[in-house]
Amino acid sequence: MGLSRRLPDPLQVRLLRLLRDEGPLSRAELGDRLETARTRLLAEIDRLAAVELLVEAGPAVSRGGRRSTLVELNPRLRFAGVDLGATSIDVEIVDARMEPVAAFSEPADIRTGPRPILQRVNELLQKGGGRLDAIGIGVPGPVSFRDGVPVSPPIMPGWDRFPVRELLSREHGCPAVVDNDVNIMAIGERHGGVAHSVDDFLFVKIGTGVGCGIHLGGRVYRGSDGCAGDIGHIQVDPSGPVCSCGNIGCLEAVFGGAALAAQALEAAQSGASPALAEQLTAAGTLTAHDVAVRAAEGDVASIQLIREGGRRLGSVLASLVSFANPSMIVIGGGLAQLGHILLAEIRSVVYRRSLPLATGNLPIVLSELDSRAGVAGAAVLASELTFEQVL
Amino acid sequence: MGLSRRLPDPLQVRLLRLLRDEGPLSRAELGDRLETARTRLLAEIDRLAAVELLVEAGPAVSRGGRRSTLVELNPRLRFAGVDLGATSIDVEIVDARMEPVAAFSEPADIRTGPRPILQRVNELLQKGGGRLDAIGIGVPGPVSFRDGVPVSPPIMPGWDRFPVRELLSREHGCPAVVDNDVNIMAIGERHGGVAHSVDDFLFVKIGTGVGCGIHLGGRVYRGSDGCAGDIGHIQVDPSGPVCSCGNIGCLEAVFGGAALAAQALEAAQSGASPALAEQLTAAGTLTAHDVAVRAAEGDVASIQLIREGGRRLGSVLASLVSFANPSMIVIGGGLAQLGHILLAEIRSVVYRRSLPLATGNLPIVLSELDSRAGVAGAAVLASELTFEQVL
Repeated sequence: MGLSRRLPDPLQVRLLRLLRDEGPLSRAELGDRLETARTRLLAEIDRLAAVELLVEAGPAVSRGGRRSTLVELNPRLRFAGVDLGATSIDVEIVDARMEPVAAFSEPADIRTGPRPILQRVNELLQKGGGRLDAIGIGVPGPVSFRDGVPVSPPIMPGWDRFPVRELLSREHGCPAVVDNDVNIMAIGERHGGVAHSVDDFLFVKIGTGVGCGIHLGGRVYRGSDGCAGDIGHIQVDPSGPVCSCGNIGCLEAVFGGAALAAQALEAAQSGASPALAEQLTAAGTLTAHDVAVRAAEGDVASIQLIREGGRRLGSVLASLVSFANPSMIVIGGGLAQLGHILLAEIRSVVYRRSLPLATGNLPIVLSELDSRAGVAGAAVLASELTFEQVL
Repeated sequence: MGLSRRLPDPLQVRLLRLLRDEGPLSRAELGDRLETARTRLLAEIDRLAAVELLVEAGPAVSRGGRRSTLVELNPRLRFAGVDLGATSIDVEIVDARMEPVAAFSEPADIRTGPRPILQRVNELLQKGGGRLDAIGIGVPGPVSFRDGVPVSPPIMPGWDRFPVRELLSREHGCPAVVDNDVNIMAIGERHGGVAHSVDDFLFVKIGTGVGCGIHLGGRVYRGSDGCAGDIGHIQVDPSGPVCSCGNIGCLEAVFGGAALAAQALEAAQSGASPALAEQLTAAGTLTAHDVAVRAAEGDVASIQLIREGGRRLGSVLASLVSFANPSMIVIGGGLAQLGHILLAEIRSVVYRRSLPLATGNLPIVLSELDSRAGVAGAAVLASELTFEQVL
């Protein structure tokens, strides 16, 4: 059998993950943690040291018997995480332990198209300095994970099937991986956030629209066409407003950044909210952020808008809880700032509507990593790529 | 490392599955199909032959070079599949190739409790004759797959946490596995039915209630508490009837065997359906089956009831398609007999409501195995147990 047909070695991947997440360990500790025979483990360590993924890291504390030295991931490993939003580029370069060594964040309009946007991504990655071992990138639309390309992404004109992975990989001479933005946020939250070590959870992103990252059995579930989690177009109101997708009463048409801004405008113009009317006069425009600020200040109409949105989102999540029986729901994205009014409403609906068995132990919590979730997850995905590709 | 800590060997499991599903193969064919080095494969075959799981099966057709002999699963292997319904016991005993060698089916009320029901299961299994290698059983309620017990099953009084697996295992001296009835139907349909080799699909069972088996990434997904797929209590009509669970307008409260029977009664008594009224007078009662028969005969009110139900179920499935992006939906269970009127309505709603990317290639089809899906799947689950437990 040729090396080219070798499948990813579960021991290899488990060993590298353990060192990434826990830092230097002795060979004895590794043997215990990985439940692996000593000879096989030592051979594996030698093999990974030979390709410079592992290095010795000084003597371990003695447990009696032979002295042991610590093993760690090569501290010179560098992974890049890129999070493309509708209106932003976020980049983080991390070391072998997933600690940031450089970070950049700037506005950018995804509709400018793939060449100028990826050109800028390349510049930021080069600003980070030094050679990269792998790149992970998330984009705000459906992705063919296998092909490394966006697929008919509604808000990304010009990106359909653009070879994002190939371009990044060629430019930086390292492997790259492309995923949906919500999926990388879920990965980030599971690795270093509130969903740490949780196998089955939903990450609900509330931004301009609404999306859901699905983590099942310890892995991201992407669906048969890569568009799993597209919950923004679930119908919540058959007599509701027309959605941008052409259907009636989708979740996104009644809740999310765009819907809230439209509802705020209506509340300001109808006189329902003098506070929002004042803001509109002052700024000439209203955003979902304004609703959050006014609600925090006690504006009744703004609180009502958030509650109503929470009720709509909650009813969708209640259905998904009955279906998927997750052990946690994480709420993230720019509008997670709507905070506790939103969370209280979502909880109330989900706990009332879903089965007792499914909600008996179901925390519904805010994202911990917040705006870093995307880049952190993309970098973790990049490291996994390296761990699986070693021969 | 002791043998007791050995993890299931992917090669071992893949090898045994291949022989189960394709029958006798030569060592050369096995090497090709499993992409495994010859020495490792031969050692594995010897090991599995030593524990009498594999046997030689005569000479293979020569491919030039050394003569090769065929290898097959021991034809004396016997697996049992048991499907407990609300009102029935179905048992099938199959051989190593999953071909039935004995089958029994009889009415039984699950509410009689675990001891009499399992006593009868034991008698039927013994009637099958001979030693069993493993037993799979499905029950109509939530299950802790890990513990092998039902958990708070609503329609199974007395079964909560009853040690079903332990009792069967002890009685027959072989390993046993307990799962939810919809999950075993999904497994059956994937192994020998319309979902053959499909990795991501939903199996929707329409019986007295409505449930969903979720097959993702090639495996049953059970959720964090084992109650994933409980879609019967998703709210479809906030102003609908009260459900047996106490909530308002659940899917089961408006569609399913029980709901259809109630709606048929109303249609008969209100004069909306003279055909159903006639049936009610003749039989004294109405069932969902009567609605199916009258609809097939052209009764407009009966057709309307099925269409309305299909529309309700379709709207739930549309949401689940957006969420899970499956590559197939299989409709099964006793009321799949509602057939093409139901199917047409479900398809119409799902194809109209879900994202084009998710429905571009999404067959929505009837179960092929029909009432055999459960026992067939339970037997497959039993065989997997054997394949994974060999040391």
